[in-house]
Amino acid sequence: MTLILYELAAAEEDRRFSPYCWRTRMALAHKGLEAERVPWRFTDTEVIAPSGQGRVPVLVDDGRWLSDSWVIADHLEAAYPDRPSLFGGAVGRALAHFVGQWVEGVIHPRLFRMIACDVHAHLADRDKDYFRTSRERRIGMSLEAFAADRDTRREGFRRSLDPARAALAARPYLSGDAPAYADYVLFGAFQWARCISPYRILDADDPLHAWRARLLGLYDGLAGKALGYPC
Amino acid sequence: MTLILYELAAAEEDRRFSPYCWRTRMALAHKGLEAERVPWRFTDTEVIAPSGQGRVPVLVDDGRWLSDSWVIADHLEAAYPDRPSLFGGAVGRALAHFVGQWVEGVIHPRLFRMIACDVHAHLADRDKDYFRTSRERRIGMSLEAFAADRDTRREGFRRSLDPARAALAARPYLSGDAPAYADYVLFGAFQWARCISPYRILDADDPLHAWRARLLGLYDGLAGKALGYPC
Repeated sequence: MTLILYELAAAEEDRRFSPYCWRTRMALAHKGLEAERVPWRFTDTEVIAPSGQGRVPVLVDDGRWLSDSWVIADHLEAAYPDRPSLFGGAVGRALAHFVGQWVEGVIHPRLFRMIACDVHAHLADRDKDYFRTSRERRIGMSLEAFAADRDTRREGFRRSLDPARAALAARPYLSGDAPAYADYVLFGAFQWARCISPYRILDADDPLHAWRARLLGLYDGLAGKALGYPC
Repeated sequence: MTLILYELAAAEEDRRFSPYCWRTRMALAHKGLEAERVPWRFTDTEVIAPSGQGRVPVLVDDGRWLSDSWVIADHLEAAYPDRPSLFGGAVGRALAHFVGQWVEGVIHPRLFRMIACDVHAHLADRDKDYFRTSRERRIGMSLEAFAADRDTRREGFRRSLDPARAALAARPYLSGDAPAYADYVLFGAFQWARCISPYRILDADDPLHAWRARLLGLYDGLAGKALGYPC
């Protein structure tokens, strides 16, 4: 069994900041699997061409190329059924997808507004133009204008996390007594911010801060040891 | 086995409109259980005093009084383990709670704004003062002022449903191939509106409209046959 994971990297190759790659990294650790982790930049499309598309995470499992964090999670669950489950069954899998839609539709856009310029500042030179052009087309303004009022928007971002905060008031993880894939999906967003931006997105007394600390400590501190900013 | 369910009713005793009672009603049907359904009004606190509190749903299962829709769901899951599961396991249960927090924190408040006056208009006379006083204290304005600009707010309400809409693009139910408790939690919100208000909250071409139609048809059309408005 040989596993290779292509992970988005900044100019420093150890700064791995993609929220989607973090999902896969945590899922591999959850399954007790070791992968060779290959740093990848936005413009390295040729390198992952065998996956049939141009984004990471890309996982190569014994020669089989897989892309898309959900496809990879489903593959890990199916290919390694005797290891701890990522979803806890069909209902858990479907509801993890709901959490994913909430994270991608509600949390990511608000968070990106606070870290967009920091992402750009950390990128390898060869990635900067691609990133600015593609993101500014999507958001319809300059990265600088987009992120300008982040102090004002931070409260709204924090409030948008209320459903997770309320759920965590009654249990240590979104998935219950133990972490599972839905936790990694939300955690990926926080790790995206932590690895690329010094901006403080959570207060220390926020229950989500404590939950994030638990996630940072999992698997021998895998995520907490990763190159990033204090949070 | 004798089951009695106290359900919130409007002036017409067959108009059962509580979103929380609908969760329980659907959960009982999911488990294949029949209950005697007793209409209850906000001011009938004495009737449910043995439950130790003053709200419905209240379920009496062979003399044991239970309140709170989540407590009742947990009871049904534990007491009737050989019948179809409401949660599909521990992860599914925890994530159903997350869905619940999202429904109660994001969806209910926006929806209540559109139906608050219709609720009041349908109540039994003896409930009207209680409802107006308690709700106006909570919202800090008159019910009429609160609901005045519902046409303007409807788009925001619909957008707040985007995570569910996106999740349902890939599967017939939030819980996957078959409905489970998380679906009933969101469905309760829609049934609250349908049973008490003629206001059209979803467009006919909204994927959520189709999902709701599936829920309305479950269990021999249990929810669809309930007294309410076309939707």
